[in-house]
Amino acid sequence: MHEKTITTKAGFHGKLLHVDVLEVELGPGERATREIIRHPGAAVILAQLDDGRFVLVRQYRKAIERETLEVVAGTLHRGEDPVVCAHRELHEETGYAARELIRLGAVVPAPGYTDERLHMFFARLKPEQGAQQPDADETVSVAYATAAEIESMIVDGTIEDAKTLAAWLLYRLRQ
Amino acid sequence: MHEKTITTKAGFHGKLLHVDVLEVELGPGERATREIIRHPGAAVILAQLDDGRFVLVRQYRKAIERETLEVVAGTLHRGEDPVVCAHRELHEETGYAARELIRLGAVVPAPGYTDERLHMFFARLKPEQGAQQPDADETVSVAYATAAEIESMIVDGTIEDAKTLAAWLLYRLRQ
Repeated sequence: MHEKTITTKAGFHGKLLHVDVLEVELGPGERATREIIRHPGAAVILAQLDDGRFVLVRQYRKAIERETLEVVAGTLHRGEDPVVCAHRELHEETGYAARELIRLGAVVPAPGYTDERLHMFFARLKPEQGAQQPDADETVSVAYATAAEIESMIVDGTIEDAKTLAAWLLYRLRQ
Repeated sequence: MHEKTITTKAGFHGKLLHVDVLEVELGPGERATREIIRHPGAAVILAQLDDGRFVLVRQYRKAIERETLEVVAGTLHRGEDPVVCAHRELHEETGYAARELIRLGAVVPAPGYTDERLHMFFARLKPEQGAQQPDADETVSVAYATAAEIESMIVDGTIEDAKTLAAWLLYRLRQ
């Protein structure tokens, strides 16, 4: 299967989001429109302290008008190595540094309409916590949870962020 | 934490995607821009036959320019009950019908930029397979996998769709 691109038009060019509108060929004489968000990708980090607790972040998500509890994550800068991004985001959002960063794989959050790719990591943290340095337009607070607490919050819906579930599953399947 | 909306402007109005550009207040005198995709939501169904095999779908995803192997999923029609959508999508994409549909919860695929909500279900299928009726612009083929095959494909990256990982985790944690 393949869909050949016939035309590409810029549909929206924002600060974060860029939408392309494509006309594609499905088969002889068959055309369809595809609206695709172009995204630079992100690094996602499931981070753990030596005492066993995981370090999560709580932040207000305007898109869904509520606070979420998520693993650490951040958008790649242009051309940035996901490993570099992972270390940077860990430091900015939590104040912790990783002494070991292990790749868990990569996933796509919404392949129906975005090319975003999430590079997934597991981090073993150094115990010292420095100051957070969140982006100017972000308010992020650090939260701690054990493995049992995380699984219980996934089951009861307290944790509802799909990339956090994906990171947790990849971590568990590799154990 | 809360971000008060000051202004909302339509940034893009496509066939599937609608982008709003919001100016929000973070605190006294502090403003930020939020670009948000408005999405009607979707139903996601992890479907299993009585012989233990799971029914997945393979389809070409233009956004990432390759085929994916995913759980059954489809966008809610306006005002549609997620349960009704789940039965409809199961029938359209696979030709199978559910004899039992169990709620697994709900997740958000990308709360940083979309309000999309995924309503997650587990379906026990009737054994008879009717004809698929995919949307005019979709080519979907049915694939079968055991639990062990699914976990192995998640670990090796063959299954890279985050909602499929989320559905699998919710199913496993409820077992």
